[in-house]
Amino acid sequence: MSLWAVVLAGGVGSRFWPLSTPTRPKQLLPLASDHPLLVDTLARLEPLVPAERTLVLTNVELRDPIQAIAPSLPAANLLTEPQPAGTAAALTWAAAEIQRRAGDEAIMVCVHADWSIADPDAFRATLRRAAEVAALHHGLVTVGIVPTRPEIGYGYIRAGEAVTGGARRVATFVEKPNRERAEELCAEGCLWNSGIFVWRVGDFLAEVVAHTPEVAPALAASAGDAELFFRSVTPVSVDVGVLERSHRVFVVPGDFGWDDVGTWASLARVRKADADGNTSSGPVHVLDARDNVVHSEGNAVVLYGVEGLVVVVRDGLTLVTSVERAAELKLLLDALPASLRDLP
Amino acid sequence: MSLWAVVLAGGVGSRFWPLSTPTRPKQLLPLASDHPLLVDTLARLEPLVPAERTLVLTNVELRDPIQAIAPSLPAANLLTEPQPAGTAAALTWAAAEIQRRAGDEAIMVCVHADWSIADPDAFRATLRRAAEVAALHHGLVTVGIVPTRPEIGYGYIRAGEAVTGGARRVATFVEKPNRERAEELCAEGCLWNSGIFVWRVGDFLAEVVAHTPEVAPALAASAGDAELFFRSVTPVSVDVGVLERSHRVFVVPGDFGWDDVGTWASLARVRKADADGNTSSGPVHVLDARDNVVHSEGNAVVLYGVEGLVVVVRDGLTLVTSVERAAELKLLLDALPASLRDLP
Repeated sequence: MSLWAVVLAGGVGSRFWPLSTPTRPKQLLPLASDHPLLVDTLARLEPLVPAERTLVLTNVELRDPIQAIAPSLPAANLLTEPQPAGTAAALTWAAAEIQRRAGDEAIMVCVHADWSIADPDAFRATLRRAAEVAALHHGLVTVGIVPTRPEIGYGYIRAGEAVTGGARRVATFVEKPNRERAEELCAEGCLWNSGIFVWRVGDFLAEVVAHTPEVAPALAASAGDAELFFRSVTPVSVDVGVLERSHRVFVVPGDFGWDDVGTWASLARVRKADADGNTSSGPVHVLDARDNVVHSEGNAVVLYGVEGLVVVVRDGLTLVTSVERAAELKLLLDALPASLRDLP
Repeated sequence: MSLWAVVLAGGVGSRFWPLSTPTRPKQLLPLASDHPLLVDTLARLEPLVPAERTLVLTNVELRDPIQAIAPSLPAANLLTEPQPAGTAAALTWAAAEIQRRAGDEAIMVCVHADWSIADPDAFRATLRRAAEVAALHHGLVTVGIVPTRPEIGYGYIRAGEAVTGGARRVATFVEKPNRERAEELCAEGCLWNSGIFVWRVGDFLAEVVAHTPEVAPALAASAGDAELFFRSVTPVSVDVGVLERSHRVFVVPGDFGWDDVGTWASLARVRKADADGNTSSGPVHVLDARDNVVHSEGNAVVLYGVEGLVVVVRDGLTLVTSVERAAELKLLLDALPASLRDLP
């Protein structure tokens, strides 16, 4: 079984402002460890899929920064999208590239570059099991995460008929719920839709041809020209454009401390906190303070007698907010002068 | 009536850490306005006492920094103490210096370099009235501040028999009270012991000779040699060493927005707050936040959705604490590594 990995690393975003900016997005930042999230992601895959069989998809601006932090990734494995075109197109392009190099039987594992995984061994074991299910059933396999809280920020998967190897068919994908509904979904045994997918490239491309008119004709017409392909597709997510339309979708449960590192507050989950619940990186000194998240890129930070704050220091700028408010940074950014918001 | 001013500018201290440090004490910092407190103090005195008749007492280390920020002060008017010797010795030395230059009749006004005064006109009018009382009664006149809150950080003055010009004899000096006692003292009409003193130099020196064995013999023996004088005295405050022992002490009430700028929280009183109670200096951006004190020496600071914090940013260091805890910074400093505590 020839395993390939596809790492989606094109995201931009402002949820980790002032550290994350369009030219320095989250996946390039050392948020979960002392290495950038993308570097953590590649290291986590390495025992299962070596760099030679790992493709990283990103945008043109991030090509050089990614090569700088991931020098062992072959240059030919760093694919760039000329413009954002949705995950259906990105994964179709990656699948076609793997098909060209390794044929229809190659199995691709799809992950995002900016997640944290607490238990990498269990993560890889789950991917292996998912790959077996994909091979056996010619299925599109998603890894559904066993929920640890009634999170309203994720979609859920309701599993149906059991097949081999602990896998089930997907009964329905459930949209992001409200709080009450999220509690019901957790009680019901639904799983988080993580965005981890595993499939044979031939099977996936066949499903795209069968169900995804937004992407399939562009692939046929592009003749291997990425520029032409990405400019011809209609952007759609792989969930909406392929998985929700396919009848060959399976789910394998995963329980390995997956976190999408979505807000500053999530660092309290993915980094080790001190006895008082403070999470810090950089030269941080905390006295008589609780449940704070502090991140400094170099300057010293001293917290004294405060609680539940997020303090971020980068060269030239200090942000002080609360753990709750850090989830709504966009409201702040909309109100800031552009010179501050659009930091390099 | 020849008025002289004596400005005590020797204080060190850590209550405005990380901005204030031994080599950069509070009086050199732009805390109440955009100018250092000492510069504010000299400007406030200027319409009453020109720089030629103003003496500034400080320590050797601060001589150059003070000359740099107060270039109009004649070099001969900047007196240095070779070691901290208490306010009784400092004011005795200043009085003797004025006596040498202007004789016994000169009246000296004593203030500290690091206060804020909201109403400088009323301040100067009060000093004029105090000077008249001093001249008329050959008294040591203190200005007692009309309290605006039951402050436990100051001593109080209980006034006795009325004399001319709104002045009274001092009945007793009251030590710093607890909260309950402070409320009683305010209700009783006691005044804050500000440390503003006005007297004829001849009268003050006579009282020192009569009542202050810690200082008087050293003055007689030093023959104008400052080094010898300050090394020979026994340190004692002017309150304990002179005023509490003298029977010629008067108090004139003052109500001009005096503040000793004692903690970061005091900036909320002495600087103009925005509509949400935030006080800031430097490039500070505040959104949906209340009652914070923010001071930056240059780097941008963004506060979002937080309340009652003190945030101080100087080159290389950010302090985040609360308005309440800022009053106990010493506890923090005792716990910090020396490299952080003893910033230049």
